[in-house]
Amino acid sequence: MLDLLIKNTAIITMAGSGVGLIPRGNIGIRGNLIEVVSDADHHMANQQAHRVIDGTNKVVLPGLIDAHIHTGIALLRGLAQDTDHWMQKALWPFAEALTPEGEMAGSLVNIIEGVKAGTTTFGDYDSSMANLLHNHDQVGTRARVAETINELPDEMKDLEVGELYPLDAAEGQSKLQSALDLFKQWHGHDNGRITCMFGPQGPDMVSKELLLEIKELATKYDTQIHMHVAQGDREIDQMTKRYGQRSISWLEELGLLDTRLLAVHLTEATDEETRLLAQRGSAMILCSGSIGIIDGIIPPAAQFLAAGGKLALGSDQAPGNNCSNMFNEMKFTAILNKCKAVDPRVFPAWKMLRLATIEGARAIGLGDQIGSLEPGKKADMIIVNLDSPALCPTIMAPVRNIVPNLVYSASGSEVETSIVDGRIIMESHKLINVDEKQAMASAREAAQTLAYRARPGKNNIAIQMMEKEQL
Amino acid sequence: MLDLLIKNTAIITMAGSGVGLIPRGNIGIRGNLIEVVSDADHHMANQQAHRVIDGTNKVVLPGLIDAHIHTGIALLRGLAQDTDHWMQKALWPFAEALTPEGEMAGSLVNIIEGVKAGTTTFGDYDSSMANLLHNHDQVGTRARVAETINELPDEMKDLEVGELYPLDAAEGQSKLQSALDLFKQWHGHDNGRITCMFGPQGPDMVSKELLLEIKELATKYDTQIHMHVAQGDREIDQMTKRYGQRSISWLEELGLLDTRLLAVHLTEATDEETRLLAQRGSAMILCSGSIGIIDGIIPPAAQFLAAGGKLALGSDQAPGNNCSNMFNEMKFTAILNKCKAVDPRVFPAWKMLRLATIEGARAIGLGDQIGSLEPGKKADMIIVNLDSPALCPTIMAPVRNIVPNLVYSASGSEVETSIVDGRIIMESHKLINVDEKQAMASAREAAQTLAYRARPGKNNIAIQMMEKEQL
Repeated sequence: MLDLLIKNTAIITMAGSGVGLIPRGNIGIRGNLIEVVSDADHHMANQQAHRVIDGTNKVVLPGLIDAHIHTGIALLRGLAQDTDHWMQKALWPFAEALTPEGEMAGSLVNIIEGVKAGTTTFGDYDSSMANLLHNHDQVGTRARVAETINELPDEMKDLEVGELYPLDAAEGQSKLQSALDLFKQWHGHDNGRITCMFGPQGPDMVSKELLLEIKELATKYDTQIHMHVAQGDREIDQMTKRYGQRSISWLEELGLLDTRLLAVHLTEATDEETRLLAQRGSAMILCSGSIGIIDGIIPPAAQFLAAGGKLALGSDQAPGNNCSNMFNEMKFTAILNKCKAVDPRVFPAWKMLRLATIEGARAIGLGDQIGSLEPGKKADMIIVNLDSPALCPTIMAPVRNIVPNLVYSASGSEVETSIVDGRIIMESHKLINVDEKQAMASAREAAQTLAYRARPGKNNIAIQMMEKEQL
Repeated sequence: MLDLLIKNTAIITMAGSGVGLIPRGNIGIRGNLIEVVSDADHHMANQQAHRVIDGTNKVVLPGLIDAHIHTGIALLRGLAQDTDHWMQKALWPFAEALTPEGEMAGSLVNIIEGVKAGTTTFGDYDSSMANLLHNHDQVGTRARVAETINELPDEMKDLEVGELYPLDAAEGQSKLQSALDLFKQWHGHDNGRITCMFGPQGPDMVSKELLLEIKELATKYDTQIHMHVAQGDREIDQMTKRYGQRSISWLEELGLLDTRLLAVHLTEATDEETRLLAQRGSAMILCSGSIGIIDGIIPPAAQFLAAGGKLALGSDQAPGNNCSNMFNEMKFTAILNKCKAVDPRVFPAWKMLRLATIEGARAIGLGDQIGSLEPGKKADMIIVNLDSPALCPTIMAPVRNIVPNLVYSASGSEVETSIVDGRIIMESHKLINVDEKQAMASAREAAQTLAYRARPGKNNIAIQMMEKEQL
């Protein structure tokens, strides 16, 4: 007996080298696993299920993977963009006013936002991950997370742009201990729905010694190192000032460039550095919306893919993207890279869907578990309502348009149902395990308090823009 | 007595040089006009209204302007992208299988899609506009339209890429007559809700004589000339082959570069050509999503704005964008241009919102009627629900984040209510004057028929992609 059967539905399995589309089929789930994916009615004649969903005018596809997201700073949505020196001038003045409660409240709304737009797996990355995981645990999302490890002292706001950050080894050890505690408490939680990685914030924010210690630990725990790499001119500036080397050659020298490295951004990586990373088997996470808004840069994803690298997509954060919507990321990534190459043929729709599902899953080390709809894989999937103007018309023969429509036209609001590890966590576009209204009300209240606590002065860029009636 | 009063709401008036935000206020409508916009409760104490909407946790802003859209080809959504020679290889094979019924069915869904994402004014452009306007008339949208005028014979599909199009003067006269009939039937319809422009398809598709005739007619009817200009290497190739000149110098020679010209795309315009256009007072429509997908190009909007030009945004078309969502266009346009300039400060959120409202209105000649919320202007506005995860939290003091959140984070699905010319045309995200389900069912049926009628063969790019499991 199946637990759930979705009948008469289009299925984008993402099996094989393309999208593996089944125009009309059935998909059956038992426990947390996919048991059957069938392309014809008669195969299912003897299948009984506790619950049956009619998939007419719907399409089932693997849940989307947001491989890099900082849900902990979501309360700052809309407070940091349209400026140079984003981190120092726009993010930090508000980030340092965040409380653990504010982080939790913002994170919950950010997770809800992602689920409502089709994300089932979150590569969450923060310095209070032990708290934030309670949100993922509650909502029912798959999370592959990292506790931020750096050696930065708490007070960074007084630093001038371009000044070398002080690194504090004791601070680093304390944060490493938090990361180890996170592993103890959460790694493998709920049947492996929640897993941990190590998260050194960047080669500029962690000493050589700590990086090498983390490398050993990643081997011991058999997990990945999720790290910002070449994420901006700020980082490269710090690296050359501190070590006289750029980020990627430094990591190569330290032996960090291997299959455990999950390198985020590569904003400032040269083509040669990018190829080296791919050749070493490291994976890359591309955050197109975020890096476009923060830096005005299109990272070298094309070069990374051309060198055979494993690529995933991420939404990064609410203050500087400003949304966590993987449909958005797919479309952006395609258009930005078409414009970078001045070639409309590159980054086609089917490839974008692969990056947000099966190829993203492989990049974050979960390719054997999720990312495609095949018997034996974990049941992470979304049901999209095709009876939506932006996805209309759907044509199934003699040509098809469903994949381009999902990638280039869906807004995310068409996602009706979300299933993670065999459990329905959203139905009729409403989350099952959390009170959305209450979550938003809490976030609004926490944000209001934060905004006053931050006390932005006349030098604050947001205040200056307000005075010019630009906000 | 007011007809409609929206109380206790945030208002983005777009008055002045910025966004003119009123954190908490009221807006009153009488007939088709805005009567009062107030920033404090007590001003409204004596105001009675037939209908009152509570605006708590909502924001009212001018309806968005999609200045260039071909709703007539929306049935082809998802059939033409990720290819070079988009028009010849991907669009035409299906476009020539379109019937008037198919155009109507697709157009209606496209208009519904736009309204649901906040568009109130459509710069619709097609060769069967007299039909399509019945859709705008029914749905209640504001439309400023052009009947396509060209001298192309019906059969274009056998043309090789790069072959000079035949121009047929009789064909041109017949289409011009249709345009004149359109003026007679629709120009000024319903209190000016529907107005007409002249729509020569491009300098490469109309002879010199016909262009000059259209110029005279535009003066006679005191309207604009809405024309694709420098819209691709295809056009420039045709122009140099036919006239030995590029598009913009040709139009300058003919005296077409003046304040009546509404030039669409400028994909291939040089900086110098772009500046000339702005200096002559012509307006530009920028279709970022469409040109990004079709050509992999970011048009010279920055140069046009720097030269003082009047810029509007457009979604262009469903086969090659593939959605008509102005929130999408605002975000794309910002990020693409930040990346082109490698500068996160350019194309900030407030400017994007201006382009989609007041500045767009000025570009299409309606700046005195719509585009901002000010007493005496026509009541075209949308109400956006801020109680949506992607727009949460909203902060109003001491800093604000509402405009960046609308531009960079809204998906369009947060638009709750749409008002055009004082009439509510959408409420609770449901259109009032049209059966959405029925419209989508009709479009699906028409699209299925079209796909078989088009008989795409083995050389068709969509068929080839299907065989590789990419569709």
